[in-house]
Amino acid sequence: MSKSLADISSLIGADISPESGGVIIDGVASLQDADHGDISFLSNTKYARYLESTKAKAVIVPENVDVPDSIVPLVVPDPYLAFLRVLEMFNDRSARDIADGISDSAVIDPGASIGNGVSVGPCAVIGNKVIVGKDTVIGPGTVLMPGVSVGENCVLYPNVTIMDGCTIGDRVVLHAGVVIGSDGFGFAPGDGRYHKIPQIGTVRIESDVEIGANTCIDRAAFGETVVEAGTKLDNLIQIAHNVRIGSNTVLASQVGISGSTTIGKGCQLGGQAGLAGHLQVGDGASVGAQAGVTKDVQPGDIVSGYPAKHHMTAMREEAALRKLPELLKLVRDQEKRIRDLENKNS
Amino acid sequence: MSKSLADISSLIGADISPESGGVIIDGVASLQDADHGDISFLSNTKYARYLESTKAKAVIVPENVDVPDSIVPLVVPDPYLAFLRVLEMFNDRSARDIADGISDSAVIDPGASIGNGVSVGPCAVIGNKVIVGKDTVIGPGTVLMPGVSVGENCVLYPNVTIMDGCTIGDRVVLHAGVVIGSDGFGFAPGDGRYHKIPQIGTVRIESDVEIGANTCIDRAAFGETVVEAGTKLDNLIQIAHNVRIGSNTVLASQVGISGSTTIGKGCQLGGQAGLAGHLQVGDGASVGAQAGVTKDVQPGDIVSGYPAKHHMTAMREEAALRKLPELLKLVRDQEKRIRDLENKNS
Amino acid sequence: MSKSLADISSLIGADISPESGGVIIDGVASLQDADHGDISFLSNTKYARYLESTKAKAVIVPENVDVPDSIVPLVVPDPYLAFLRVLEMFNDRSARDIADGISDSAVIDPGASIGNGVSVGPCAVIGNKVIVGKDTVIGPGTVLMPGVSVGENCVLYPNVTIMDGCTIGDRVVLHAGVVIGSDGFGFAPGDGRYHKIPQIGTVRIESDVEIGANTCIDRAAFGETVVEAGTKLDNLIQIAHNVRIGSNTVLASQVGISGSTTIGKGCQLGGQAGLAGHLQVGDGASVGAQAGVTKDVQPGDIVSGYPAKHHMTAMREEAALRKLPELLKLVRDQEKRIRDLENKNS
Repeated sequence: MSKSLADISSLIGADISPESGGVIIDGVASLQDADHGDISFLSNTKYARYLESTKAKAVIVPENVDVPDSIVPLVVPDPYLAFLRVLEMFNDRSARDIADGISDSAVIDPGASIGNGVSVGPCAVIGNKVIVGKDTVIGPGTVLMPGVSVGENCVLYPNVTIMDGCTIGDRVVLHAGVVIGSDGFGFAPGDGRYHKIPQIGTVRIESDVEIGANTCIDRAAFGETVVEAGTKLDNLIQIAHNVRIGSNTVLASQVGISGSTTIGKGCQLGGQAGLAGHLQVGDGASVGAQAGVTKDVQPGDIVSGYPAKHHMTAMREEAALRKLPELLKLVRDQEKRIRDLENKNS
Repeated sequence: MSKSLADISSLIGADISPESGGVIIDGVASLQDADHGDISFLSNTKYARYLESTKAKAVIVPENVDVPDSIVPLVVPDPYLAFLRVLEMFNDRSARDIADGISDSAVIDPGASIGNGVSVGPCAVIGNKVIVGKDTVIGPGTVLMPGVSVGENCVLYPNVTIMDGCTIGDRVVLHAGVVIGSDGFGFAPGDGRYHKIPQIGTVRIESDVEIGANTCIDRAAFGETVVEAGTKLDNLIQIAHNVRIGSNTVLASQVGISGSTTIGKGCQLGGQAGLAGHLQVGDGASVGAQAGVTKDVQPGDIVSGYPAKHHMTAMREEAALRKLPELLKLVRDQEKRIRDLENKNS
Repeated sequence: MSKSLADISSLIGADISPESGGVIIDGVASLQDADHGDISFLSNTKYARYLESTKAKAVIVPENVDVPDSIVPLVVPDPYLAFLRVLEMFNDRSARDIADGISDSAVIDPGASIGNGVSVGPCAVIGNKVIVGKDTVIGPGTVLMPGVSVGENCVLYPNVTIMDGCTIGDRVVLHAGVVIGSDGFGFAPGDGRYHKIPQIGTVRIESDVEIGANTCIDRAAFGETVVEAGTKLDNLIQIAHNVRIGSNTVLASQVGISGSTTIGKGCQLGGQAGLAGHLQVGDGASVGAQAGVTKDVQPGDIVSGYPAKHHMTAMREEAALRKLPELLKLVRDQEKRIRDLENKNS
C-alpha cells in the first residue's frame, strides 16, 4: 500500500512543504527497522539518537526535535496518537480475509439462524438453534455448538470452540483456538474418588470484548460466567466457572482466575497473575504481573507479589530482603559485642 | 425445564407441606442471583442474610434456619449435597448435543474400527487403525491420528487432537482444544545447536479421567506418559514427557509438570504450580497455588512458595518477612546503642 | 519393530560376543520399565542398583560397570548418546502418518501454490496466495490463512492456525493447536474505554524452529515478530507482538514474553518464567523457572526469582530468608540485653 505525504499530513494535521506532499510512503516502521520508503515516529525523546541512523523517509515528531535534512518531519503535539492514525490508514487487513461468504464446506445445521452478510469459512461447524447476527465472520474450523448466540459484526478466528448455550454480544473478537463454555472444574470428593458436579450454567460475553488466542472461559456450574462490555483478554488466560469480569478491564497473557471470583470495572491484571476463588477485586484495581492474590482487593488498590499485598509494602519488603544477608552478619557481630559488654558488666 | 417441589423434595428427602408440593420450579440459582421460580440453597450460615432479599421460590436449608414466609424451606442435613442432586435433576445437557450419529462430513479411515452407538461430529477426522469403543461421542473438528485407541462412553469435545498410538480408557472426558501425545520437549545440544531426540513413546489416559480445555499432555520419549484412573485436570495444564500422575489426583488450571516427574495418588496441585523434572511427589501430598517445587515431596506433605517448602515454614518465613522492614530499623538503632555502651565501657 | 543386537552394537560401536549378535531386541525402555526383549541404558551410575532388577535383555553401559550375567552389556564411552542413536533406530513414526498425499476433504484455494510432494490432511484449509514448499506435511484441521508462506520439509500437526501473511522457514515443526500470527494485545485507553491499535505486522519463523502444542505467537503491531533459526519452544508459551527471539534458544513450557522484548542467541528460559516488555536479554543468558524478569539481562548472566536477580544473589537472599524467623528471636533477645546493659550503665 502507498500513500502520499500530502494525505498523511492532512490526516494527522501536520504542516509540510508543498514539494514534500508528493513524496510516496510505502509502509510504517520503527526508527530502527525502517526501510527507504517507510514513515516512522519519535514519541519518547530518549530515542532521538535513532534519527541519525534511520532510513525512514518521513518521521512524525513532537516540536523542537532536530531532524536530519534527508527526512521529512511531520510535527504534531502527540506523535504516538498521530502514528496510530497512520497505522490505521495503512491497515489493509480485513475480516473478509478470514472468510468471505458462506463456504461450501462449512457445515451449518438447518435449524441455525444466520444473519445477512454473515461469512462462514471452510470446515466451520454451526449447530442447531445457533443464532449468528448480521455481518459476523466465522473462521475455518470454528465450531458453534447448539443454542449458541453470536451478535452482529463479530470476528471469530479459526479453530474457535463455543459450547452449547453460550451468548456472545456484538463486535466481539475471538482469536484462534479460544474455548468458550467448557465445563467448570467442579468435582465433589467422596468414597476416595471425585464425583462430577454438573455444570449446567453458561457463559455470557458482552459487546466489544476481545479475547486472545487459546484463552479458555469455563461455563458456570449454574447461572453465568460473565465478561462485561469492552473488556480485553490476552492469550492463554484461564477464566474459571462463575467468574464475573467488569467492563473495560484488561487482563494480560496467562492470567488465571479461580471460580466465583469477581473483578471490577476498569481493572488491570498483569501477565501470569493468579487469583484464588471467591474473591472480590474492586473497580480500578491493579494486580501486578505474577502476583498471587489470596484476599479481596479494594477499589483502586495496587497489589503485587506472593501472597499479593499493597505494591508499596511489597516493594519495601523486597528492598529489606536485599539487605537481609548483610543484616545477618551485623546481628551476629552485635551478638559478640553484646556478650563482651555483658562480661564486662557482670 | 420445570419440576414440582413434590418431586424435588422427594429426591432429597425433605418434608414439605402438601400444598407446597404443587409449586413449580424452573431453575437453580444462588440466593443472590435467583429469580422468581428458582430454587436455591444455604449451606454456610454466614450467607443467611441473603435469605431476606432472595427472589427464590424455595430454598434448601439446614435445620434451625429462619426462612421468610414467602419461601418454601426444604430442610435437610447436608444442603450442599442435596443441592448437587437437584442440579443433576435440572441437567438437560447431553453428550448427544455434541454429536448424534456419524456426520456425513466426518472423515473416517476405512481402517478404523468404530463401536456401536458411537457419534462423530462434522469435520472430525479419524485415522487408520483407530479403535473407538461403544457409545463414545467425538465432537466436530476433533482429530484422532492413526493407531489411537479410545474406550467406551468417552466424550471428546470439539477440536481435540490425539496423536498416533495414544490410548484412552473408558468414560474419559476431553474438553475442547486438548492435545494428547504431542512430542516431548527433548533436544540434545551439540555443535552449537539442538538436535531432536525422537519421541517414540506414547500417552496412556486411564478410565474416568477428565481433562480441561487446551491442556497438553506430551508423549513419552520412550515408554509412556500416564494419567491414572479417576484423575481430573483443569484447563491449560502442561504435562511433559514421561510424567506419571497417580489416580484420583486433581490439578488446577495452568499447572506445569516437567519431564519424568511422578505424582502420587490422591494429590492436590493448586493453580499455576510448577514442578521441576525427575521429582517424586508422594501420595496425598498438596502443592499450593503458584508453588515452585524443586525437590521431592513426601507423602501427605503440604508445600507452598518458591522454592516450595513445608507450608508452615513458608507461612512462618512470610510472617517474618513482613516484620523485616521494622527489624532493619531496630537493628540500626541497636547498633548505635551498642556503640554508646562500648564507648562507655572502653 | 525388531532389531538384532548385532545391528545395534554395530550402530553404536560396542563389542559383543558373536553368540549375542543374534539376540532380537523388540523395543527400548528405562531400566525400571523394561520388559523382556527391551534394550536399556545406564548413564548415571547412581542408578546402577536398577541393573539387579531390570528385565532388559541388553543394556548400554559405560566401562567398569558390573552387569548381571543374564543381561548382554554393550560397553561404550557415552551410553546416553549411544542410546539416542538406538532410539532413532527404533523410531518408526513418520510425518506421513499425519497426512499422506492431498486429502479429498482438504479445502485448498485455487490461488494457493502447493509444492511437489506436499501432503495435506482432511479438513485442512489453505487460503488464497498461500505458498507451501515441497515435501511439507499439513495435518488435519490445520488452517493457513491467505498469504501465508511455509517452507520445505515442514511438519504442521493437526488443528494449527497460521494467520494471514506470516512466514515459516524450512524444516519447521508446529505441534497441534499452535497459533501463529494472532493479533498483538494493543489497545489505547481513551474516553473510559480501550481502542484497538491495528496489528498490521506479521510473524517470521525461521528454519529449523520447533514450536510446542497450543503455543501462541502474536503478529507485530507493525514490522515482524521473529523467532530465529534453530530455536525450540515448548508447549503453552506466549510470545507477544514485536518480540524477537535469537537463534538456538530454548524456552520451556508456559513461558510468557511481553511485547517488544528481545531474547539473544543460545539462551535458556525455564518453565513459567515471565518477562516484562521492552527488555533485552543478552546472548547465552539463562532465566530460571518461574522467574519474573523486570530488567535487562546481560549476556551470559543467570537470573532467577521475583523480581529476577543474579541467581547467586537470589540464592543468598533465599538462604538468609530461611534464617529470618530465628533472627527475629535473636534481635528481640538482644533488645532486652541491651536495655539491661543500658540500665546498668545509666
